[in-house]
Amino acid sequence: MAVSSLFLILCSLPALFQITTAAKVRHFKWEVGALFSTPDCVENVVLGINGQFPGPTIRAKASDTIVVELKNHLHTEGVVIHWHGIRQIGTPWADGTASISQCAINPEETFVYRFKVDRPGTYFYHGHYGMQRSGGLYGSLIVDVADGEKEAFHYDGEINLLLSDWWHKSIYDQMVGLSSNPFRWIGEPQSLLINGRGQYNCSLAAKFTTGVAACPARNRSCQGNAFSVLPNKTYRIRIASTTALASLNLQIGNHKMVVVEADGNYVQPVAVDDMDIYSGESYSVLLTTNQSPSMNYWISLSVRGREPQTRPALAILNYKPNSPAKLPTLPPPVSPRWNDYEHSKSFSNKILALRGTPTPPVKVDRRIVLLNTQNKISGFTKWAINNISLVLPSTPYLGSLKYNLKNAFDAERPPEDFSKDYDVAKPAVNQNSTTGTTIYFLRFNSTVDVILQNANALAANVSEIHPWHLHGHDFWVLGYGEGRFKEEDVKTFNLKNPPYRNTAVIFPYGWTALRFVANNPGAWAFHCHIEPHLHMGMGVVFSEGIRLVGKIPKEALACGKTATILTDQHP
Amino acid sequence: MAVSSLFLILCSLPALFQITTAAKVRHFKWEVGALFSTPDCVENVVLGINGQFPGPTIRAKASDTIVVELKNHLHTEGVVIHWHGIRQIGTPWADGTASISQCAINPEETFVYRFKVDRPGTYFYHGHYGMQRSGGLYGSLIVDVADGEKEAFHYDGEINLLLSDWWHKSIYDQMVGLSSNPFRWIGEPQSLLINGRGQYNCSLAAKFTTGVAACPARNRSCQGNAFSVLPNKTYRIRIASTTALASLNLQIGNHKMVVVEADGNYVQPVAVDDMDIYSGESYSVLLTTNQSPSMNYWISLSVRGREPQTRPALAILNYKPNSPAKLPTLPPPVSPRWNDYEHSKSFSNKILALRGTPTPPVKVDRRIVLLNTQNKISGFTKWAINNISLVLPSTPYLGSLKYNLKNAFDAERPPEDFSKDYDVAKPAVNQNSTTGTTIYFLRFNSTVDVILQNANALAANVSEIHPWHLHGHDFWVLGYGEGRFKEEDVKTFNLKNPPYRNTAVIFPYGWTALRFVANNPGAWAFHCHIEPHLHMGMGVVFSEGIRLVGKIPKEALACGKTATILTDQHP
Repeated sequence: MAVSSLFLILCSLPALFQITTAAKVRHFKWEVGALFSTPDCVENVVLGINGQFPGPTIRAKASDTIVVELKNHLHTEGVVIHWHGIRQIGTPWADGTASISQCAINPEETFVYRFKVDRPGTYFYHGHYGMQRSGGLYGSLIVDVADGEKEAFHYDGEINLLLSDWWHKSIYDQMVGLSSNPFRWIGEPQSLLINGRGQYNCSLAAKFTTGVAACPARNRSCQGNAFSVLPNKTYRIRIASTTALASLNLQIGNHKMVVVEADGNYVQPVAVDDMDIYSGESYSVLLTTNQSPSMNYWISLSVRGREPQTRPALAILNYKPNSPAKLPTLPPPVSPRWNDYEHSKSFSNKILALRGTPTPPVKVDRRIVLLNTQNKISGFTKWAINNISLVLPSTPYLGSLKYNLKNAFDAERPPEDFSKDYDVAKPAVNQNSTTGTTIYFLRFNSTVDVILQNANALAANVSEIHPWHLHGHDFWVLGYGEGRFKEEDVKTFNLKNPPYRNTAVIFPYGWTALRFVANNPGAWAFHCHIEPHLHMGMGVVFSEGIRLVGKIPKEALACGKTATILTDQHP
Repeated sequence: MAVSSLFLILCSLPALFQITTAAKVRHFKWEVGALFSTPDCVENVVLGINGQFPGPTIRAKASDTIVVELKNHLHTEGVVIHWHGIRQIGTPWADGTASISQCAINPEETFVYRFKVDRPGTYFYHGHYGMQRSGGLYGSLIVDVADGEKEAFHYDGEINLLLSDWWHKSIYDQMVGLSSNPFRWIGEPQSLLINGRGQYNCSLAAKFTTGVAACPARNRSCQGNAFSVLPNKTYRIRIASTTALASLNLQIGNHKMVVVEADGNYVQPVAVDDMDIYSGESYSVLLTTNQSPSMNYWISLSVRGREPQTRPALAILNYKPNSPAKLPTLPPPVSPRWNDYEHSKSFSNKILALRGTPTPPVKVDRRIVLLNTQNKISGFTKWAINNISLVLPSTPYLGSLKYNLKNAFDAERPPEDFSKDYDVAKPAVNQNSTTGTTIYFLRFNSTVDVILQNANALAANVSEIHPWHLHGHDFWVLGYGEGRFKEEDVKTFNLKNPPYRNTAVIFPYGWTALRFVANNPGAWAFHCHIEPHLHMGMGVVFSEGIRLVGKIPKEALACGKTATILTDQHP
């Protein structure tokens, strides 16, 4: 053996060693396609991955690299997948947001998502183009602690609940209605789904409920899921909500839940009987199987914050050795009143960071106040932020920013605040708004406060819940308040143990204060996670440190001005 | 004035003069979008242009240049428009076939179609991506003779009939069914439409028909169209069929029709009581209003070649000064029996070129025999040509051929003929097939005979009608025959006055012989015009004279390998 070869082998050994004992590269080959499925007793077309709905669960360990070769097998539609809660540090092109981080993947083309899952936690993934998430394009992404590391709490087993809502009307029809004048709202979901299964127009607990039929036993999809447990053990229940619209309340009959994780970060353990979960949020709760082992118990999911026209979804907590098909003998838990916002606020305020979680910088460089309003633009119903309703440009921001392309988006700077005269308690005097593709440029490494200000919608006495989700970062939730945010509210900010999250809700007529450090080079969506609201313009785009963005894969640029301008040099 | 400026002006004058007095450039600004519409008494989502369904009619004169700035306003789908019957001489990138002539136009992007309409005639346009044509993306394109020129016949007025069929199930659901195993056929259309209007589950002629309700008068869409005429005049009725599936029969109560044009070429005048129109075909007929002017008459459209489960569509020929709302007092004409193929063949054989139409070259350079079979591929139901079921590559052929890109499509040459042992009268012994993206490379300016050979489908005793449409060329229809094509059938070819067309039908268990000259540089689809059949692979691609193709607009290349490879040189 030549000396040079030996040298090569010796130099390679540490790298090899590292790969086999520490972080792994986990490869997945996925095809997105439409398929027939029966999520809630009724057959429908859903978007799935590799013929599965919901999509396959990704399970990895902290520091692993995930590689998903995503082939689009839809016939005429583009597709992208967003890895919700993964910050994409150093890989902003893998964030999976059409028009922001990449070009949508065309039919029969493949895009390779390669990114690191740097932290353990409960995450999920979903489509981020049009309303494909609402169409069923989602799945779980669970990151365990790295080998040799320990979670902050003990548990004997796991249950994973991926929560969603479901319409019988296709997302194509829904989008047409939302974009029509007169406006047609999508209405309330026909069903809530737990791991892709719900009960439409029937109930597993029919014998406890008047006026509802039992679900047909021959229809497997209607029978819900049963999650098997052993008595006197502790289970970690991972929960993520990818609903298009519904805010949810989860209860498990006779059992307390101890919340320990929110959006991939540990929180101070807090025991609750029921918990609210907004779209875009994830949690872990611990459940101890300390109830009578002679029976099974209900897992019940109901709607919060909107007058419910959707029946609760039920699943079964199956105490072994009972049959998983044995229905609980007790009635399902009673859901809290849908508009008991005090109950919801009380839960949100209980979520506090576990000691050891990063704390917010005290010095703030910039404050952006974002007024959330429902508006009219040329007769069309929209949502707007500081009077701008977001429309996405055909050339993704990341590429046009990196290559400094002119006219790819509106160059004008969006407002930092809204008028002092604006009364958030009433419908706007002037309800008109404009559309825009503007960007909030953030100084790299600066600390930014965002005040999300809720307001009255178009109709009097209506103000809705909006869960806001930030891409590329976690933020600290410094506090929630009532009415219009005032300067003195700063004094109430929790700087000691604010929860570190990627999604936070604004309550009707209230405000929510967030802080984050703009330390992740890229272009990032920040938006209401209610899918039709985002579709109606309820979002903004942040950008920071673009000069530090590495080489964007050319497949992410193969559309719009990045495709045509970059080919200009070619003969 | 400097001498050079004067020189410039003088040299420009002839060009200016030409533009104003002869051929015009006609500009159109279109947005494709989905909208609510009620084609057949039932509200549905349709694809439309500028909020209209069917799309706006283009009217031009021979030698004009059409410029359509097409913006895609769909949310997640690409789009293209094919100008059916326009040969695109010198502009193969404007043919509007996704994956063949151009990249599909992404949402919010604009593609400029610029092409010359070189010949007068009755044409139409339609989507050519997925099943968007079936979704309603179509309209009329009518080219008049150039100023100073005369048509080959006289007429006093015009009526335009754009014929289609309509399903209540969305094209998205239809495509999923076609691509599923087990296979789900789209079924028969719910309605036939005349200029976008039909009658579902009701009839304008209810009083003549047992068991059918009258159409609700308050529903404007159900009331059909009335076409007003004056007595004792001659009208040119332009007819084009853009059906997804249905072969049609048209009748006008009490009136003869004299066929004078087929697919943009004059034919020998022939008087008929009813006429068959296959998807992809266009005709002009002359109608003389020589019947009693005291009443109105039915225009009736019914299904041919498939056992009809779809009611005829009716419209009204309104003799002025009768009210257009006045229903005819006679019952609608009786449609020919759906499977009276002798009647259909008799009509096809009557269509002969008018003297002065180009005649076919006598010397033939190549004969390609294309066997049409229904097949199974890994359990999926497909159509195949010489055992290859066409799948379209993600990089359009025109770009990958022009830039000589490797691995953009299957390099293997597809077969010129099929096995001598194959029995076209029976289901195939081996029904399996393969998919492919192969091309038939044609020598530039060579004369090619294509024998389209029909056969038995998967089930015994089933052989269907397939109307084949060629892009970029007209072909001569040399003849139709029964059973398997034999060498001696060549003797029966009509070389004297074969009709010059772009669409020709093959009858069950029969063959159709076509001849064309490969004189148009580009890549061209040749396919069954039944939309679900093409979706299931029933087509081939021809290419010729690629080295003579001019500069392809970069927007036509902004996808797939043409986008990524061409950007490779860029930093």
